[in-house]
Amino acid sequence: MKQWIYGRNTVRELIKNHKASQVFIVRNTNDDLIKLCKDNHVKMRIGEKKEMISLVGNVAHQGVACETEGYDYATIEEILSSVPKGKQPCLLMLDGLEDPHNLGAILRTCDAVGVDGVIIGKKRSVSLNATVAKVSTGAIDHVKVAQVTNLTRTLDALKKQGFWAVACENENSQDYRQVDYNMPLVLVIGSEGFGISRLLKSHCDLNVVLPMVGHVTSLNASVATAVLLYQVYNSRHPL
Amino acid sequence: MKQWIYGRNTVRELIKNHKASQVFIVRNTNDDLIKLCKDNHVKMRIGEKKEMISLVGNVAHQGVACETEGYDYATIEEILSSVPKGKQPCLLMLDGLEDPHNLGAILRTCDAVGVDGVIIGKKRSVSLNATVAKVSTGAIDHVKVAQVTNLTRTLDALKKQGFWAVACENENSQDYRQVDYNMPLVLVIGSEGFGISRLLKSHCDLNVVLPMVGHVTSLNASVATAVLLYQVYNSRHPL
Repeated sequence: MKQWIYGRNTVRELIKNHKASQVFIVRNTNDDLIKLCKDNHVKMRIGEKKEMISLVGNVAHQGVACETEGYDYATIEEILSSVPKGKQPCLLMLDGLEDPHNLGAILRTCDAVGVDGVIIGKKRSVSLNATVAKVSTGAIDHVKVAQVTNLTRTLDALKKQGFWAVACENENSQDYRQVDYNMPLVLVIGSEGFGISRLLKSHCDLNVVLPMVGHVTSLNASVATAVLLYQVYNSRHPL
Repeated sequence: MKQWIYGRNTVRELIKNHKASQVFIVRNTNDDLIKLCKDNHVKMRIGEKKEMISLVGNVAHQGVACETEGYDYATIEEILSSVPKGKQPCLLMLDGLEDPHNLGAILRTCDAVGVDGVIIGKKRSVSLNATVAKVSTGAIDHVKVAQVTNLTRTLDALKKQGFWAVACENENSQDYRQVDYNMPLVLVIGSEGFGISRLLKSHCDLNVVLPMVGHVTSLNASVATAVLLYQVYNSRHPL
């Protein structure tokens, strides 16, 4: 499905990855993108701000948008076969995440720490869209995302292949620093409002929690995910 | 200045902290908040959804809003005198942060790890507002925020009092895990688009950076702040 995607970093990545079928630029902006379009032989149109708003809405478009075929999902098999030889795979499973800003920020972090793939559900979950793309600042083109019908069944299949399922969960859990993450890993994160669903939680091997000494009882989902993913990174790449 | 603030957690915290002058609830929502209003003798009105939209706009209000005097800022002196005896103070300075979602998420993390105060500039920076309050899920009522005219001068004054200024900055920096944060600390974070201003950067004692192995060159501001703040916490509270 064709869609218009906006934002300077995002459009630049799409052009570079040959995923932009045409680019729209608001008059008097972004000379470097004009050159990039020319170099990559991408159809380009320069026009007025009101045309931009009719394409993408009144959003932070930064003066550029491009039309693309939409975002590709990977399969679990594609994710697993893309893991470099000798590397302990690290996957992230998001159960019912709803906020596209959170998914975008999470993809950005996943790219930064080298997560091999992200698994989301088909139902009750945000999917890849223009906001996710914009917030991810291009990471959406580098991090593989699989969309599956049944998270629990997918998790079980991964466990059979030797993965450990670690849930970010307050109950019956240990400090996240007590775990050595040097193992084939699926980190499971719940939704903003409701956490991990009961069934999926019961299929995880262990629960970890971030210490919290104040009044709030949870962190923003993309924040908690990042702190955990950096702990995984640090556990695998000690100083 | 009176303003209407929305969202269930936020309104609940405001009622509990006696900062709500009146509460508006959309018909057929939130019985527990009705009881909370009664228990705290807060004026309450139940009405239609369209009235709610006229009060706060078409936002994720969750059926509740309250009128409040607005958010109080602290002074640097108030922040410093509130640090518990024997504790190494930990402050966060945000240089030109623009996104209220980032500030809200950062306040939430600050509450979680026990940051003593947040310092923001008066110009070119988001200030405390309804969106920040909502995203902070109540942390805005627990974390002291000072708004100062000149960040560099404030930083210098803190350094004279024995604080170390650590900048989150890519250039001339060391891995964030190499620093022992057991010292009176001001962590300095830059804006989403431009990082830390040149002048402020030159007044910092040392620069730290998060390792990044992928394609994106920076993390979301609230994400980077959280990873650093948890490192500070871990450095001060080893397992």
